Amino acid sequence: MRRVYFDHAATTPVDPEVAELVMKYMTDHFGNPSSVHGFGREVKKPLEQAREQVTKAIGASHVGEIAFCSGGTEAANMALRGAAHINKQKGNHIITTSVEHHAVLSTCQQLAKEGFEVTVLPVDQYGRVSVEDVKNALTEQTILVSIMHANNEVGTIMPIADIGKMLKEQDRKIIFHTDAVQSIGKLPVNVDDLNVDILTLSGHKIYGPKAIGAMYLRRGTWWQPIMYGGGQERRRRPGTENAPGIIGLGKAIEKVTENREQEAERLTKMRKKLVDKILHNIPNTRLNGDPDNCLPGHASFCFDYIEGESMLLSLDMQGIAISSGSACTSGSLEPSHVLLAMGIPKEIAHGSLRITMGKYNTEEDVDYFVDNLIPIIERLRKMSPLASGACTPCGCASCEENH
Amino acid sequence: MRRVYFDHAATTPVDPEVAELVMKYMTDHFGNPSSVHGFGREVKKPLEQAREQVTKAIGASHVGEIAFCSGGTEAANMALRGAAHINKQKGNHIITTSVEHHAVLSTCQQLAKEGFEVTVLPVDQYGRVSVEDVKNALTEQTILVSIMHANNEVGTIMPIADIGKMLKEQDRKIIFHTDAVQSIGKLPVNVDDLNVDILTLSGHKIYGPKAIGAMYLRRGTWWQPIMYGGGQERRRRPGTENAPGIIGLGKAIEKVTENREQEAERLTKMRKKLVDKILHNIPNTRLNGDPDNCLPGHASFCFDYIEGESMLLSLDMQGIAISSGSACTSGSLEPSHVLLAMGIPKEIAHGSLRITMGKYNTEEDVDYFVDNLIPIIERLRKMSPLASGACTPCGCASCEENH
Repeated sequence: MRRVYFDHAATTPVDPEVAELVMKYMTDHFGNPSSVHGFGREVKKPLEQAREQVTKAIGASHVGEIAFCSGGTEAANMALRGAAHINKQKGNHIITTSVEHHAVLSTCQQLAKEGFEVTVLPVDQYGRVSVEDVKNALTEQTILVSIMHANNEVGTIMPIADIGKMLKEQDRKIIFHTDAVQSIGKLPVNVDDLNVDILTLSGHKIYGPKAIGAMYLRRGTWWQPIMYGGGQERRRRPGTENAPGIIGLGKAIEKVTENREQEAERLTKMRKKLVDKILHNIPNTRLNGDPDNCLPGHASFCFDYIEGESMLLSLDMQGIAISSGSACTSGSLEPSHVLLAMGIPKEIAHGSLRITMGKYNTEEDVDYFVDNLIPIIERLRKMSPLASGACTPCGCASCEENH
Repeated sequence: MRRVYFDHAATTPVDPEVAELVMKYMTDHFGNPSSVHGFGREVKKPLEQAREQVTKAIGASHVGEIAFCSGGTEAANMALRGAAHINKQKGNHIITTSVEHHAVLSTCQQLAKEGFEVTVLPVDQYGRVSVEDVKNALTEQTILVSIMHANNEVGTIMPIADIGKMLKEQDRKIIFHTDAVQSIGKLPVNVDDLNVDILTLSGHKIYGPKAIGAMYLRRGTWWQPIMYGGGQERRRRPGTENAPGIIGLGKAIEKVTENREQEAERLTKMRKKLVDKILHNIPNTRLNGDPDNCLPGHASFCFDYIEGESMLLSLDMQGIAISSGSACTSGSLEPSHVLLAMGIPKEIAHGSLRITMGKYNTEEDVDYFVDNLIPIIERLRKMSPLASGACTPCGCASCEENH
């Protein structure tokens, strides 16, 4: 059976060149990079080259601004907890948005328990926060603003550069963090253009290994570690360096950055084909998120009268891997907090599908997917008590359209 | 040139079978184990098998007691910070020892800054803490005791089972954590026999991959996470599961546990040969740590009148990898806190070498090492102003012997 992987926002296959590097630094060169002897030194050098690769990819000024850690979630925890606690004397107010990844949202909730005031800003129907709303939320106490670069569920791109510019114009040092886990390799990511102080990223979303991430920390930003131990990573992140992972991430970020423009163009074209074909062939369907200002290769839909999970399982039987929301919240029966924040009613949000394409996908994959999706939706709708005239209008935008 | 790796306490080569598994789950089966579709499911099952392997290896009662994380340092941070903060209302006193790894010691120092009282117990000349000292340090406020199973610098084994028993006999719930990073695969490690509530371990010290660790948390132990995000690892450790690492760790711990007894015997024999040969051939040398009650394959020496770093570099030129202390503190000019805690004077502690043998080492490696070490020590001592009669007696035990 054909297998189509359309869940690149959850994780990506590791690039063979990256996998080979990881293997090499797991076997041939396995030393602890902090060791002084040859086995250590032969790992230290490529590890520092990887730091240069990350530095260059995101336009940082200095390799010392990059600290490696165990992934996007740890990086977000480092960014928020590390920036919040050390600056508590300056103020205790943090601003974020309602559509952030749980790594940011749950960390903010925890910080609220620890005495911080957290403002969670709303987003518009496309999942976008406005610069104005961020500006209006600022108080004398604001020390930290954390807003994702692009949303992991609907792909909407946030106006990070403009928010950063506005924050810079305030006459105070407010730390600005962006979670760039989904945007690296897909959008231009330059820490100066984006006007951010902290930027976090992950390896396994860009064809790199799992369990490796990095935090960019602009020079001069007040910050403290969240874990304690050895002096690795310039005392920012203790523990034996994950040399295979770091070296793999370096190669992965270099590759996605080099090929970004042409790959984004290809994925945007494929996405257009997919969106057009679905909206044209499947009635009572809505495209979630910003239709234009979104990640290439990323499309989220709500299909009325159906549960996302049923579609997902039916598609899975045809070898197609997509998700109903984010992998981190799978298993939860709650509808996506992102879709709810965008004003999509609960019943409709339950019928969501996220398609995220990647570098090994082809137009044939799109055809195979849509050709399989159409009869599945038809079949599931026939079985649904909500469809076939039994729908109770709930007053949502979809009802307005359909009734 | 022959290469001899004698630094297994810093890190180990990855077992080829383990490396192959990591590769497999990085490439052929790369899915996110939290994904519901086939790509995710095919990873979830082996991931849970790995949890069973760890559960079995340490004699835990239930797979739910094991949470995977990014390594020994994170595991220690989880153990201490997670147990301390949630139990703060019961008491604020923590007991540890002066010879712990920095992952424990620095975390305790941080907890002290956050309002906890930390008692750092002394050790005897062998680096061993006494059950009596732990008992005497207990107060009404004591909520947590953290003592390593075996020391990473000198290999001394701590009386964990007895301390655990004594703590159990107190009529209160004092959480007992042991850092078993160095003992897994070398000593019998059973959480019930050791009477511990939390046990932490790492993959890369047992021929597993780097950046993977685990925390055993006995059922019913009050504990809270130190990071926030997705619901992975039963809400104990957020972030996309490091499936390749976890599966690799499972295989690695299974293998070292299966072969433990015979390998320990072989290493103990090799260690005896090495110790005898060094003490017999090199005067003014002391063996650090408990000569008998220590890790197999682990030997630490102080060579009077010489700096460890010089020996290390000279040996490195002969293809031999050893360390002067722990890799996590390499680069630091301070002498080892472990040796100082054992009462070894600063000048002597500077001349320390740690030899840690592993499964690919042979008796020939021991011969090659000692045969190279002897002339190196002779040469360095000739160059040393402290040797050749120029030594100023400092009153230490070594002076007493030599003057």
